Amino acid sequence: MGNCIVPYCDGPKNTNVRWTLPAVCFVWQTAMVILFGAFVRYNKEVDAHWPETKIHENITSDIENDFYFRYPSFQDVHVMIFVGFGFLMTFMKRYSFGAVGFNFLIAAFGIQWALLMQGWFHHIDSTDGMIKIGVENLINADFCVASCLIAFGAVLGKVSPVQLMVMTLFEVTLFAVEEYIILNLIHANDAGGSMVIHAFGAYFGLAVSWVLYRPNLKESSQLNGSVYHSDVFAMIGTLFLWMFWPSFNSAICKHGDGQHRAAINTYLSLAATVLTTFAISSLFQKHGKLDMVHIQNSTLAGGVAVGTAAEFMLMPYGSLIVGFFCGLISTLGYIYLTPFMERKLKIQDTCGIHNLHGMPGVIGGIVGAISAAGATESVYGQQGLINTFVFKDDFKHRTPAVQGGYQAAAMCIAVSFGIGGGILVGLILRMPLWGDPTDDNCFDDEVYWEVPEEEDSADPVLQYNNHTVVNKHAEV
Amino acid sequence: MGNCIVPYCDGPKNTNVRWTLPAVCFVWQTAMVILFGAFVRYNKEVDAHWPETKIHENITSDIENDFYFRYPSFQDVHVMIFVGFGFLMTFMKRYSFGAVGFNFLIAAFGIQWALLMQGWFHHIDSTDGMIKIGVENLINADFCVASCLIAFGAVLGKVSPVQLMVMTLFEVTLFAVEEYIILNLIHANDAGGSMVIHAFGAYFGLAVSWVLYRPNLKESSQLNGSVYHSDVFAMIGTLFLWMFWPSFNSAICKHGDGQHRAAINTYLSLAATVLTTFAISSLFQKHGKLDMVHIQNSTLAGGVAVGTAAEFMLMPYGSLIVGFFCGLISTLGYIYLTPFMERKLKIQDTCGIHNLHGMPGVIGGIVGAISAAGATESVYGQQGLINTFVFKDDFKHRTPAVQGGYQAAAMCIAVSFGIGGGILVGLILRMPLWGDPTDDNCFDDEVYWEVPEEEDSADPVLQYNNHTVVNKHAEV
Amino acid sequence: MGNCIVPYCDGPKNTNVRWTLPAVCFVWQTAMVILFGAFVRYNKEVDAHWPETKIHENITSDIENDFYFRYPSFQDVHVMIFVGFGFLMTFMKRYSFGAVGFNFLIAAFGIQWALLMQGWFHHIDSTDGMIKIGVENLINADFCVASCLIAFGAVLGKVSPVQLMVMTLFEVTLFAVEEYIILNLIHANDAGGSMVIHAFGAYFGLAVSWVLYRPNLKESSQLNGSVYHSDVFAMIGTLFLWMFWPSFNSAICKHGDGQHRAAINTYLSLAATVLTTFAISSLFQKHGKLDMVHIQNSTLAGGVAVGTAAEFMLMPYGSLIVGFFCGLISTLGYIYLTPFMERKLKIQDTCGIHNLHGMPGVIGGIVGAISAAGATESVYGQQGLINTFVFKDDFKHRTPAVQGGYQAAAMCIAVSFGIGGGILVGLILRMPLWGDPTDDNCFDDEVYWEVPEEEDSADPVLQYNNHTVVNKHAEV
Repeated sequence: MGNCIVPYCDGPKNTNVRWTLPAVCFVWQTAMVILFGAFVRYNKEVDAHWPETKIHENITSDIENDFYFRYPSFQDVHVMIFVGFGFLMTFMKRYSFGAVGFNFLIAAFGIQWALLMQGWFHHIDSTDGMIKIGVENLINADFCVASCLIAFGAVLGKVSPVQLMVMTLFEVTLFAVEEYIILNLIHANDAGGSMVIHAFGAYFGLAVSWVLYRPNLKESSQLNGSVYHSDVFAMIGTLFLWMFWPSFNSAICKHGDGQHRAAINTYLSLAATVLTTFAISSLFQKHGKLDMVHIQNSTLAGGVAVGTAAEFMLMPYGSLIVGFFCGLISTLGYIYLTPFMERKLKIQDTCGIHNLHGMPGVIGGIVGAISAAGATESVYGQQGLINTFVFKDDFKHRTPAVQGGYQAAAMCIAVSFGIGGGILVGLILRMPLWGDPTDDNCFDDEVYWEVPEEEDSADPVLQYNNHTVVNKHAEV
Repeated sequence: MGNCIVPYCDGPKNTNVRWTLPAVCFVWQTAMVILFGAFVRYNKEVDAHWPETKIHENITSDIENDFYFRYPSFQDVHVMIFVGFGFLMTFMKRYSFGAVGFNFLIAAFGIQWALLMQGWFHHIDSTDGMIKIGVENLINADFCVASCLIAFGAVLGKVSPVQLMVMTLFEVTLFAVEEYIILNLIHANDAGGSMVIHAFGAYFGLAVSWVLYRPNLKESSQLNGSVYHSDVFAMIGTLFLWMFWPSFNSAICKHGDGQHRAAINTYLSLAATVLTTFAISSLFQKHGKLDMVHIQNSTLAGGVAVGTAAEFMLMPYGSLIVGFFCGLISTLGYIYLTPFMERKLKIQDTCGIHNLHGMPGVIGGIVGAISAAGATESVYGQQGLINTFVFKDDFKHRTPAVQGGYQAAAMCIAVSFGIGGGILVGLILRMPLWGDPTDDNCFDDEVYWEVPEEEDSADPVLQYNNHTVVNKHAEV
Repeated sequence: MGNCIVPYCDGPKNTNVRWTLPAVCFVWQTAMVILFGAFVRYNKEVDAHWPETKIHENITSDIENDFYFRYPSFQDVHVMIFVGFGFLMTFMKRYSFGAVGFNFLIAAFGIQWALLMQGWFHHIDSTDGMIKIGVENLINADFCVASCLIAFGAVLGKVSPVQLMVMTLFEVTLFAVEEYIILNLIHANDAGGSMVIHAFGAYFGLAVSWVLYRPNLKESSQLNGSVYHSDVFAMIGTLFLWMFWPSFNSAICKHGDGQHRAAINTYLSLAATVLTTFAISSLFQKHGKLDMVHIQNSTLAGGVAVGTAAEFMLMPYGSLIVGFFCGLISTLGYIYLTPFMERKLKIQDTCGIHNLHGMPGVIGGIVGAISAAGATESVYGQQGLINTFVFKDDFKHRTPAVQGGYQAAAMCIAVSFGIGGGILVGLILRMPLWGDPTDDNCFDDEVYWEVPEEEDSADPVLQYNNHTVVNKHAEV
């Protein structure tokens, strides 16, 4: 598909989004207000009737409100979404505004749309037909948006904010369907979303990037690289993702041991990943010099890969093993696979999401399937097995071995949804009305942002006299 | 008042704070030690007698200690105060040290003084006349300091650290009085401080800035603007404020549904604000380019405006509506109102706090009054209504409609206190002994900071050989 | 020792770590996997048998799981370790990659090794001989690593990543022994680790730096300084350390009043430190200008010094007094002591850890000893005294006065272990096989990192055309 889109790239392009971007933002936000008015209410732990709920349900203390079980984890996840993903993508020398700004925009829209979509599938109160939300819904909305931001990483610098909004609209919708199939119909377990979030988001983004292939991207490739300070900014993103990943993987786990175990497994897996990432990065460079791209990205692969099995009895050493191999595979991916995919498969993956989310997500699905299939009552305890895999109601006769099979099926579904949905949405995004940049304007904030004049640091006198004054508040 | 201060600006100025700043810091810190010694003790949840308290009050578990209800929110608020406000103000090309450094200084002083002032008004233990503090006091002290940092935003770059300390001293004092009147005497509800913190702080700062009007500020206006990296630094502040605002608005709410509801309302309001901010920013610029000033600031307006009503049954769609209009109004404020205020009203508002805190704070007060007046027992439940509005003791016969009136009165009081107090303190700050900078020295870290030599990035050889060595630890 | 190492510095050096760094990372990470497999399991609050544990131990709610008492504090500590320490050290103009990257590497290795070492000493389950881990172990592992990162601060920019890994291996080992002696054998109390972490880590690092003295370091001293933006990056580290220090000191305190009190004492101490740091910094500079080095570092000294006594009934004013003097002493240390130590004692302390961790750590030990010795039943209550000092089992007859003596002894042990261990490890690090940089290559990321080409900001046309394209993902 890459080679047939010459007409798409040659024509003169209009990157002015002065009408389309405000229109999209206003119309969609208005739609959100109306839909929330029609469909969304507080759940019983949020509602002012909580004192009555406590009496009815024999709850002795306010501390039993789900808020206190999940809010700290929610805030950590929130930081990952907005600062983690946002700053991770600021690494390019002239696309930091776009990275952190568009990340902000699509996440803010995505969480609202996700609350609705996930609500319709999962949280309808049958008594009044309303979606009832609480802190767990906020976490799930943030999770859903994570898959959009992963896909954003593949097309970073090559699309307009309007395209990103369109992509987010469709991706959230598809996500909710995929999630419903995997978690409810198939009844797979995916606490940290290796499959549902990471594999889906990555293959979605790669498919979009494939459809939007830009054969002449070399023209702007001077900008497709970092400068010293932008690499340090990106490390802010890396570290907040890395540190809070235990919260990500444990945020919606079962109260008590479930959350506790998921956090510890993730902590260990991530620690192991760092060492193997440094090892491979040094080993495959001339003179053994480390590459910031690897350190910024591959160190996170262990968090992705331990997601599905985070709540399982993976054991501390099991987590370390997962992290060990993911750091290795992910870094090798940056060194060999990304250039290969760009040259041969016509997939331009700006941030290398295939190495950070794609492969580790698939590995996570496989680890989840194997560890579910191998679960035994001696390791989990009778009640523990039921709790962990929710072998209740319709699924009370399911065995661990069968569960393993369903976990594997879930992984295939996530990848298929990603690829299929990505191609579909990519085709929509190729329509010539979204204001995307030309090939030689990619990776440049000038296209969509008022960028301040540069300092002439060579001459401090010139610096203060010679160039246009940028008064931040007086311009229209 | 702006036009009568020519003498104030023309004389030679001495910006050397070598004696005044240390004197102020030492004397005031010593005073804090003495006053804390005389007046401040731990409350019963902090004191080592807690095991006995548990028995007396029939508390079954340590988890019932207020620490576990509020500490995670406290830490989020703490990040907003020091990193959020601090980095939001680093946007100027040569005032990042002053932004983050003076923010640090005045917040560190302010929280101590606030613990005392708020303690005297709210937390005197009648048995021994002592102020008893716990985690809730720390949050309230941080809140109080937030109003000082808002005012700092109006005068950023135009005052000396000594002036800032003086301003903080008086503002905290006034804040405690205003807060006592609004929360205790009038018995208004203001969980997130739209009125008490934001409206008060903003109008205080604007009044100070009006009194300190600098007619020749154009001379330093080359520095009153951003460079590329400083705008990215400012986004760190923006995002930490944005992400943790749900904690801000819920931190001192009632246990259980109160905190839960406030967090969700704020989350939703902020999400809506982002979309309308992007829309207006793009719509009012030539070529539809986005302006970082709007993204950094107006995206936060929804958090301010939902503050008063955060704990009320505002409903998810209600929160979205509040956020929707605040993003719109705040961004338009940056585009039209700030230049107008500078030209016509002689109010120089460096960070545009009127758009981020002033107007949204007033809107928040109005939203609070309306939603309180409209509260019904069917929506809140009988007990829920009493809990939410604290219709107890002296106020047990108050109705929601009456409460709405008092809420509106509270808003007027906050604004009046802000304007009146700001003029008063502004006059004190005009005394020619505080070491403030001349007009052409504004927005420049050189005045109060040892600034490292610039890199000559044009020539890497020169860069390493030609300029003065800055050895960080060997200079005196 | 400094003067006898000419041969060590003169020979041609090979800084290529292409084989040694990967070898160390792979072998040690593999060892971790094996040792974790042999020795580490989940504790009963993490294990899937938790539902049974709840029944056996009559625990009524999942919220009683230690996870909910400690996880928020753990995450704050985690941020301090990776972002706090990492970014605090990015202040140098050309060593930000090394600062934040090597910090990441050694912390990720250190936490794994610490879980094992501390586990063997403290957490062996006698029924099966396994180390049983939970969230408290993660906090302790992070604590242990903090001492390694403190030592890293002394040698920052002057060692290779392989040396850092070796140093971490030995320092964690020594730490576990020292900690066992102080906490278990001597039964001293050190909630925030003033002695165990800070004094030990600082004197260890200083001793290593002494052994590795570089007489010709002046040659690279052009790089031993900051630029404007790097100082702002360092403030990110400072602030996250400052804000989360209350969590650090309270993270492993007793449930309830213990954690609550430790957080409040630390909050107050740190606030006081800021004011005295600003005072001294201004007072001792010509023209009263503030020095970023002091603001970045000395403002944190109060958190170190209140560590040991954080859980004690230090009283709010007591905490302020500790902070007051530490800001003063620490800043004076940067002004007078660090240059003196470099010239006379041949100790090159890149980050001035002696002022931030060494002296305040010792002060913390002394404060702890005095406040323990002065503890009375009237202040603590009978049960409170037993709880706070754990006067139980073998120590049930110990009195506060005796405890004070043991606290003082603990402080001496920590310092002795630091100095002795540091000299030993320093000698190991002097072996000429670790790839350390030559004197004129110190403080330069070029040695171990692929550093992106500089922007030519003088000429924007040149900037985009003239220099080598850095394509982040296509290089091998």
